[in-house]
Amino acid sequence: MQNTLNSIIEPTLLLDEKRCRRNIERMAAKAKAHNIPLRPHFKTHQSHEVGEWFRDYGVDRIAVSSLRMAAYFAEAGWQNIINAFPTNIREIHRINEIATQTQLNLVVEDLATLQFLEKELSHQVGIFVKADTGYHRTGLRPEDFDLIDQLLEYATGASKLQLKGFLAHAGHSYSARGKEEIAQIHQSHLNTFQLYHDRYDGRYPDLVYSAGDTPTCSVMDNFPGISEMRPGNFVFYDLSQWDIGSCELEDIAVAMACPVVAKHPARHEIIVYGGGVHFSKDRRSHPNGTTYYGMLANWENGGWTVNPQNACLKSLSQEHGVVAANEELLEKTKVGDILCFLPIHSCMTANLMKRYMTLKGDWLSMMSYP
Amino acid sequence: MQNTLNSIIEPTLLLDEKRCRRNIERMAAKAKAHNIPLRPHFKTHQSHEVGEWFRDYGVDRIAVSSLRMAAYFAEAGWQNIINAFPTNIREIHRINEIATQTQLNLVVEDLATLQFLEKELSHQVGIFVKADTGYHRTGLRPEDFDLIDQLLEYATGASKLQLKGFLAHAGHSYSARGKEEIAQIHQSHLNTFQLYHDRYDGRYPDLVYSAGDTPTCSVMDNFPGISEMRPGNFVFYDLSQWDIGSCELEDIAVAMACPVVAKHPARHEIIVYGGGVHFSKDRRSHPNGTTYYGMLANWENGGWTVNPQNACLKSLSQEHGVVAANEELLEKTKVGDILCFLPIHSCMTANLMKRYMTLKGDWLSMMSYP
Repeated sequence: MQNTLNSIIEPTLLLDEKRCRRNIERMAAKAKAHNIPLRPHFKTHQSHEVGEWFRDYGVDRIAVSSLRMAAYFAEAGWQNIINAFPTNIREIHRINEIATQTQLNLVVEDLATLQFLEKELSHQVGIFVKADTGYHRTGLRPEDFDLIDQLLEYATGASKLQLKGFLAHAGHSYSARGKEEIAQIHQSHLNTFQLYHDRYDGRYPDLVYSAGDTPTCSVMDNFPGISEMRPGNFVFYDLSQWDIGSCELEDIAVAMACPVVAKHPARHEIIVYGGGVHFSKDRRSHPNGTTYYGMLANWENGGWTVNPQNACLKSLSQEHGVVAANEELLEKTKVGDILCFLPIHSCMTANLMKRYMTLKGDWLSMMSYP
Repeated sequence: MQNTLNSIIEPTLLLDEKRCRRNIERMAAKAKAHNIPLRPHFKTHQSHEVGEWFRDYGVDRIAVSSLRMAAYFAEAGWQNIINAFPTNIREIHRINEIATQTQLNLVVEDLATLQFLEKELSHQVGIFVKADTGYHRTGLRPEDFDLIDQLLEYATGASKLQLKGFLAHAGHSYSARGKEEIAQIHQSHLNTFQLYHDRYDGRYPDLVYSAGDTPTCSVMDNFPGISEMRPGNFVFYDLSQWDIGSCELEDIAVAMACPVVAKHPARHEIIVYGGGVHFSKDRRSHPNGTTYYGMLANWENGGWTVNPQNACLKSLSQEHGVVAANEELLEKTKVGDILCFLPIHSCMTANLMKRYMTLKGDWLSMMSYP
């Protein structure tokens, strides 16, 4: 197994299938225990092969963040897809293409878009109205109930639109630290959703309430009023989720393997081949107060473990990563070695790397862009 | 020409060839005036087609930031390439492949790497010793002169190595603001380089001193002791370079075209399709004190202009961009419109977008990864 690392010649994103499947299994079990379908967001892994693993845990519906991604997963046979992004009417031809292959669901928050779709669609699509339950990025608020009334009424009467329900994303949970803060955001999100239930469930008894971000779905154990769980990042987790409190370090299922290219003992620095074009420039405050871009993992027995005291990447430029190294690490590390690092934000890192290497040394593909 | 924007359906990186050629021409003219060859760093554009434009201004040598990129440009016929990154010995097979096609130059800062190369190379390569003139990321300092002595001596006596000279990058110029600060960094960099001249030019009379970052090459007009100019970002420039003082807003040659997908008048926000996977998460402090991720450009007559008072992207998530919009912008912008934004860091944006659309609507390709 040690050979996997030996075969690496350049920055390579390692994927530990066992940890990844454990993350999927745990979330699928939680959804099942609450009798809520799990609709994982596939923007994190963007991979046909990783997508297949979810089927082993009963997953039959997914979310994506672009129509390109919807097309990519429709090709792999996914038959129920939400593009969880405000509908971009300029992609109408792509929407019509995808809707011939799969049950495509779109997210809408204005009447003009619904009218445009009704006029231009060649196949029926499902419609989720975007609800803003407190994140304030997109979506309609309880004060917009008049507009929501219009949207629901229009969608119900339209021949090409099938009203599905509400979609919300409590993305402000990403600014939480610890279970208590996550619980507060979760409760306020549930409370807001309840206002939609109160107003609309009588008139529209079959509405789906799709919600779920990785922090609340990982940490909470009460989902009243949620009829579909939609987390994404949990498939891999990362240092941001660890910092929020969504996971343990040992749950993180991806690590970047980077060749060592230089050592600067006087500055206590090791330079690795692995920079912003590999990790992304996402950063985080380390518990010790410094800003960091990744944390060293210890490679042993064909896999990795992590001690939270491990060395960190203290800066990144386009291709360089600078490791803050103590004497011991400097002593045992040679130019030409491979060092592995947990990423700050696995979605952005995967999106840059465009493929994975498993711990057995197999390559897994991802969708390509453009 | 207006039609170019009309054809766009998703986030698209626009490239203004006229501005880009003007940037190349100006830098080539400056290098020529100082009688120094220009060796542009191609990591910014990563494109065969853009690379060809440089030949029109007499450029015959380039720098790249990875061996993959060296291979990509060797394919396009570039015959003198420096991989301006500490040599990664794990890529020795790639080095040997590229060296059959082109005059490949490598950057080294330790003896073990030189010895490894001498043993494993199948073709001769040029060697630049990395000098640290004050940036303190990689390279050897005047206090390392004993080690530099060893490296130069070893390279001179080795059969597969051809000693070329010193390579330095004054990357700390990126933290400067305005000509005066850039000039201070430039002078200190020149002073340090002079110590290498003093010590080595007698023994090694043909040493090349390769240096040059976009701020100093754009702003300064004295390059004593520099025998090769090596800036990269100037081909496009960006808001970071504008903020540093390297360029004017009208020199920036790339802009991201983004479909409008939602409006939130109560929050004075417009949501565009264009997020961290398109722009990168690079950000900057705006002169008005806010943090921003891009600046709105005004589309007119088939191209763009920019007023520094224009609206900015105030946050990015994976696919969403949030524009801080005043009443006037909210009023005139509809869902389905295209808004164009100058990027904070054009290298990172181009690296994510993987292709360009010219103002005429033609696609220009880039190297793909992996």
